[in-house]
Amino acid sequence: MDAEIIAVGSELLTPQNTDTNSLFLTEKLNHLGILVRFKSIVGDSRDDLSLVLRTALSRSQLIILTGGLGPTDDDLTRDAVAELLGRPLHEVPEVRKGIEERYSRLGRAMPENNLRQAQVPEGAEWLENRNGTAPGIWIKDRGAILVLLPGPPRELEPMFNAACVPRLARMASDAPIRTRIYKVVGLPESEVDSLIAPLYRPYTNPATTILAASGSIEVHLRARAATEAEAEALLAELGDKIELALGDHVYSTKGESLEEVVGMYLVMRQKTVAVAESCTGGLLAERLTRVPGSSSYFLGGAVCYTNEMKTRWVGVSAELIQTHGAVSKPVAQALAEGVRARAGASIGVGITGIAGPTGGTDTKPVGLVIIGLADERGTQVREFHFPGTRDRVRLWASQMALEMIRRRIRD
Amino acid sequence: MDAEIIAVGSELLTPQNTDTNSLFLTEKLNHLGILVRFKSIVGDSRDDLSLVLRTALSRSQLIILTGGLGPTDDDLTRDAVAELLGRPLHEVPEVRKGIEERYSRLGRAMPENNLRQAQVPEGAEWLENRNGTAPGIWIKDRGAILVLLPGPPRELEPMFNAACVPRLARMASDAPIRTRIYKVVGLPESEVDSLIAPLYRPYTNPATTILAASGSIEVHLRARAATEAEAEALLAELGDKIELALGDHVYSTKGESLEEVVGMYLVMRQKTVAVAESCTGGLLAERLTRVPGSSSYFLGGAVCYTNEMKTRWVGVSAELIQTHGAVSKPVAQALAEGVRARAGASIGVGITGIAGPTGGTDTKPVGLVIIGLADERGTQVREFHFPGTRDRVRLWASQMALEMIRRRIRD
Repeated sequence: MDAEIIAVGSELLTPQNTDTNSLFLTEKLNHLGILVRFKSIVGDSRDDLSLVLRTALSRSQLIILTGGLGPTDDDLTRDAVAELLGRPLHEVPEVRKGIEERYSRLGRAMPENNLRQAQVPEGAEWLENRNGTAPGIWIKDRGAILVLLPGPPRELEPMFNAACVPRLARMASDAPIRTRIYKVVGLPESEVDSLIAPLYRPYTNPATTILAASGSIEVHLRARAATEAEAEALLAELGDKIELALGDHVYSTKGESLEEVVGMYLVMRQKTVAVAESCTGGLLAERLTRVPGSSSYFLGGAVCYTNEMKTRWVGVSAELIQTHGAVSKPVAQALAEGVRARAGASIGVGITGIAGPTGGTDTKPVGLVIIGLADERGTQVREFHFPGTRDRVRLWASQMALEMIRRRIRD
Repeated sequence: MDAEIIAVGSELLTPQNTDTNSLFLTEKLNHLGILVRFKSIVGDSRDDLSLVLRTALSRSQLIILTGGLGPTDDDLTRDAVAELLGRPLHEVPEVRKGIEERYSRLGRAMPENNLRQAQVPEGAEWLENRNGTAPGIWIKDRGAILVLLPGPPRELEPMFNAACVPRLARMASDAPIRTRIYKVVGLPESEVDSLIAPLYRPYTNPATTILAASGSIEVHLRARAATEAEAEALLAELGDKIELALGDHVYSTKGESLEEVVGMYLVMRQKTVAVAESCTGGLLAERLTRVPGSSSYFLGGAVCYTNEMKTRWVGVSAELIQTHGAVSKPVAQALAEGVRARAGASIGVGITGIAGPTGGTDTKPVGLVIIGLADERGTQVREFHFPGTRDRVRLWASQMALEMIRRRIRD
C-alpha cells in the first residue's frame, strides 16, 4: 500500500518553520510498512483541491489530507471530499453535542460556524479529536482509504496514533520499512558523496539519499524487507560501511540533534558548560537548552552584545579589546576562560564574530567567527569563515561551537 | 498564467526548517501577476517524478522544478524531464568548461560525476549559476514553460532573479497580484475570525486566509486587478476595515516579525534593552539579535539557568529565591530590575518559568511562565500559562515578552 499526503491550506503562501505533520506521518507510515510517495500542497480553493484529490485517487491507495477542517469559510476539505466522492455531508448529533459541550466547559459562547465541524460525509467514520473541535474523518471509497486530519500537530498526532495506527496496522503491509539517518558535521556534501557513493551505489535496497540540512549533511537509508529484523539487517550491512567511511564526522545515528549528542556526552562525563556569545546572540545557549534535562549540565550564558558587556559580565579586559579588536583570538579566549570562571563550569565557550550583513572590513570580513573553548587542560581557539546571510553565519557558528565541545569531551 | 512548483528530493522524508524556495518563488511570481496554485513534493524516484510532471503539464502553464540537479546518482530531474518530453540530453561544452574551471579555481580535483551537470535537454536554454555548479534549465514545450532550478536557496534565488524574472516579465500577465499580511498577537484564531469574518465574507477579491503561525495569527489578503495600483486599492479597502477591527493586536502589516517591530520602536524612542532569561534559555536574546542593526538597542542578555546564576549574574537575592521559589513574581521582577541595572539599559526583561516536560508541580505546573519588565516608570509583572510542548512554551514565552516590550514603548 502506497500513500500520499495532501496538505490543504495556505502553506503555498507562507514559509513553514517546521513541517512536523509530514515527517510525523511519514515516520509512522514507514513503521507500518507504508511508503509515502507524494506530497502535495494546495490552497484554500475547492476547485484546486478537487483536482489534486482526483489525481491522488488515480495513483494512491491511502490518501491523507491535513488541514481545512476548521470552522471558517476557507475550511473546505470536508466539502471538497464530499462533493468529489458523491457522499453528501450530514450533521452527526454526537459530534455536535461534543462541540457544544466543549465550549460550555470553557465558559464561552459557541460561534455558529463551529457547527460545520459536526458534518461528516455519508458512509464515513469520524475520529475523536482530544485537543480540538473538529473530528477527523475516515472513508473507504472505491478501493482507496481517505483520511482527513486537522492541521494543528497537537490535534493531528494524538488522533493519528489513537485512531489511524490501529486501523492501518490491521491492513499492514507484509513489508515493513525501516530507516536510518547518519548526521555528519565538518564535511561538505560533495566530499561525503565522494566517500560513500562507491559504497551505496551497488544497493537499491536500502535506498540512499544525501541531503544538506541546517548545518549538517544527512545520509538517509531506507530498507524494506519481509520482517522488521531483516530490514534492520539490511540497514546495518550498508550503514556500518558508511559509518566507517565517514569516521567521527558522524555525530548521530538515531536522529539526535548535535545539541542532544553534546548533552549526552556532558552527562556521561559529568561536565558542566557555560557560554559567552556575541554575534550568535543567544543561539548557542538556546540550542543547548532545547534539550530537556539540560539544566543538569548547562549553567548559564552571557550574551555580551557590546564591548562593555564583555568586560562587565565576563571580565574581558577593555585593553585587550582595544588592542586586538572585539573579533580576535585573544578576545575569544578571554570570553571562554572568563565565562568558565564566572560560572564555575567545567567548560567555557566564547564566540565572537561578524554575522553581517554590515560590520565587515577587508581584514575582518562578514562571516569571520572565532570560537574559544576553555577547560582544565587549557584553551583552544579556532577561526572560521562562514559564507552566506546573517542567519546562516549565526547558525554555522553555533554548530561549530557545539562540534568543538563534542570533540573536546569525546577525547 | 498559473504556475505550480515541484520540489524534487527527500523533503518527503525530512522536516524542513524553512521552506524558503517556495515562499521566495511564490512572492516573486505574484509580483509578476502569476498565481501559484499547486506545490508538489516528490522523492528521488524517476517514475514518481514523471507521474507528477505529467500531472503538472496537464494543468499548469508554468512549472518550476527545484532540486535534483546535483552530480550524484539520485539527482534525477534532468533525466526525468528529458525522457518525458522526448528531448535527449547532450553535453554543452561551455557549461562543461565552466564546471572544470570552477574546480580548478578552488584548487580541487573535479569528481567525474560533476559532468552530468553539463547536460541539457535538446532545444532547452541553460541559465547561469553564480553560486554553484549546476546550471538552471528553461524549456518551452507544447505551450508550457518548464524551469529547472537548483535546490539550495543561495543558488536558486540569484538565478531566478537574473534569468527568470526578465523572461517572465516579458510574458507578464495583465493582472498583477498584490498581497498584504496582518500579523496579530494576543488573540486566539477563533476570535480573530469572529471579528473579521463579517468584514471579509462579502469579498472574493481580495481573497482572505487566516492562519496560525509560530506564536501569531496571520491574516493574508491577496488581490488581483488590471494594475498594481488598483490591486493595492482593493487591499486597502478591505485591509483598513480589518485593521480597525483588530486594533492594536495588529503588530505588523508588511511582513515584519515581532522582533523587527520591537526593534523599530526601540530605535525610534532611542531605548536600550537587556534581558535575563531562565526557561527560554537564550531565545529572547536570540530573537532580538536576529535583526540586523540590533546592536544599536540590544546591550546584552544573561541566561541564568541555575538559581546561583540568577544571584551571581543578575543580583537576585538568594533569600528571595528561597522564600518564593525561582518561578515567582518577585523573582521575575528582580531579574528584570537586576539585568536592567547591571547592563545600564532603559528596559530590563526577566523571564522565569517551567518549560517542561518535567519540573511541574500542582501549584506551579509545566507551562507557567512569569515575565517582568522594568523601566524608569517601574516594573510590571505578568503571569502566563502556555499549553503544549517545551518548544511551544519557550516560543510563546519569548513572544509574550516581546509583546510586553512593544506595548510598553508604544505608550
